Amino acid sequence: MSSAQPGDGNDDLASRLAQTAAEIEALLDGLLKDTVREGEIARPARLLAAMRHGALGGGKRLRPFLTVETARLLGVAPAQALRAGAAVELVHCYSLVHDDLPAMDDDDIRRGRPTVHKAYDEATAMLAGDTLLTLAFEVLADPDTHASGDIRAALVLALARASGLGGMAGGQMLDLAAEGRFGAGAAATLSDVEIRRLQAMKTGALLAASVDIGAVLGGASAEQRAALGIYGRALGAAFQVADDILDVEASPEQLGKATAKDQGKGKGTLVQALGLDAAKRERDGLSAAAVAALAGFGAEADVLRAAARFAAERAS
Amino acid sequence: MSSAQPGDGNDDLASRLAQTAAEIEALLDGLLKDTVREGEIARPARLLAAMRHGALGGGKRLRPFLTVETARLLGVAPAQALRAGAAVELVHCYSLVHDDLPAMDDDDIRRGRPTVHKAYDEATAMLAGDTLLTLAFEVLADPDTHASGDIRAALVLALARASGLGGMAGGQMLDLAAEGRFGAGAAATLSDVEIRRLQAMKTGALLAASVDIGAVLGGASAEQRAALGIYGRALGAAFQVADDILDVEASPEQLGKATAKDQGKGKGTLVQALGLDAAKRERDGLSAAAVAALAGFGAEADVLRAAARFAAERAS
Repeated sequence: MSSAQPGDGNDDLASRLAQTAAEIEALLDGLLKDTVREGEIARPARLLAAMRHGALGGGKRLRPFLTVETARLLGVAPAQALRAGAAVELVHCYSLVHDDLPAMDDDDIRRGRPTVHKAYDEATAMLAGDTLLTLAFEVLADPDTHASGDIRAALVLALARASGLGGMAGGQMLDLAAEGRFGAGAAATLSDVEIRRLQAMKTGALLAASVDIGAVLGGASAEQRAALGIYGRALGAAFQVADDILDVEASPEQLGKATAKDQGKGKGTLVQALGLDAAKRERDGLSAAAVAALAGFGAEADVLRAAARFAAERAS
Repeated sequence: MSSAQPGDGNDDLASRLAQTAAEIEALLDGLLKDTVREGEIARPARLLAAMRHGALGGGKRLRPFLTVETARLLGVAPAQALRAGAAVELVHCYSLVHDDLPAMDDDDIRRGRPTVHKAYDEATAMLAGDTLLTLAFEVLADPDTHASGDIRAALVLALARASGLGGMAGGQMLDLAAEGRFGAGAAATLSDVEIRRLQAMKTGALLAASVDIGAVLGGASAEQRAALGIYGRALGAAFQVADDILDVEASPEQLGKATAKDQGKGKGTLVQALGLDAAKRERDGLSAAAVAALAGFGAEADVLRAAARFAAERAS
């Protein structure tokens, strides 16, 4: 499936991913400048620099891409959806900065560069994560995000629910618990059902929210929002199984971070629970389910269909 | 000024502070239950328990009180303002949980109890802070917060700006820098001007936002919002100078936390920069300025006037 067929969205995917990534980079760069609003005091330069280290210059920007393309599918111009996409990306970046800290996953390298606490220090990295998270909600709530107050409040609600106790942060907590961090010290052996649940929270919720936020921006009907919800959750699950497979099969150079670390830490993955072949079948099934969820849309959804295949088949 | 005069608001202050504190406690208790929304997965019990440890059972709840009383001044029933007050308190609690961590201020005791990372562990405390912050924005954005979408978005914006790089988190960063954490290792000697700037960010911004959020909820006119802004900033500054004075004069038992720690860490305070007597004069002047800012309101603002005096004269 890696050979593109005319009209299946693969041609558009690479160029649109690249374009959105460039636009998100420029937008985040502008948000993370040392500009001072009226009545506000100058910002601490070291903290701003750490935020920039954590948010700029890296990643595929898949989440904003999903937001922008879902909104575009529903008739919203990409330029009108970029700020909402940037907010999702800020939450993603905050989670990486905090998860990399020594008290959490203790990673030194991210996207081929030192993690924020290695480039700066732990206190600065904690505050950089905190302020990236806070900025995400500021960006969504700001009237500059071209949407009514009702929609901006709905965007904040969707992003907060996907990020908090019942979503990403809760999933990270379950992941740490599965490593045996809070109990007798031994890693638990999670069932495949438990692993799917953990992953739906830790990575699935924010990917699904990326799609849902585009749907809310685009004024999706209840039926459209439900279909896009299925798409987003299936894509999110496929993305994470693919991640687990890459951790086994890819090189550190490909990923820009350490590999084979899941086994070392006793992290539960579907590769461990099901074996590599079954994990690949699950990944492909989820990707197909994401594509199938878009059956009610026409060719204008091809790029989202291609994104679901990409989430499963990516090499990094 | 500690002897109450009939009609000056002091009679009401104690009872209204106690009532709001009880109502906020009940509301936070309800928000931090292991309830599961439709379509959501169950929440990790240990993380929820740590959030409860960090948010329940403590504090004067001064910030929600300011939100509720400012809203009441503008005709909003207290019951309609409680959720907004709870959101501000959640941000305050998140900041305490993170600031107490070993990489930050390294405090073991808070409100007479072990800090969250002592009662649990560092990773759990980090995630508990993250999720308390996230929950604050979820609470404000939710339609259950009785306000239009425009107002809910404005509340999110005000809270985010007060909490982030240009507000509370930025102030904490400046505070750590003043301790010499990022440089040659020696604590800097801040001027009184620099200390006021730091404190306006670290503690002043969220206290001022507590008032401003009440003003936004109450549909304040531009003139009213400006007057209440002066009140909130002066009260916030008075509160922090009072804190610095208490750190010198009060016992650990009175405060439920360690005292005399500012000197030990080389934290810049106005007591150090100006001396104790001049710091007390500044505190009283700020309190008077806060009261004066409410000159355009009648007797219905007496409880806010009393709160400004209380912020300066409190014994804990």
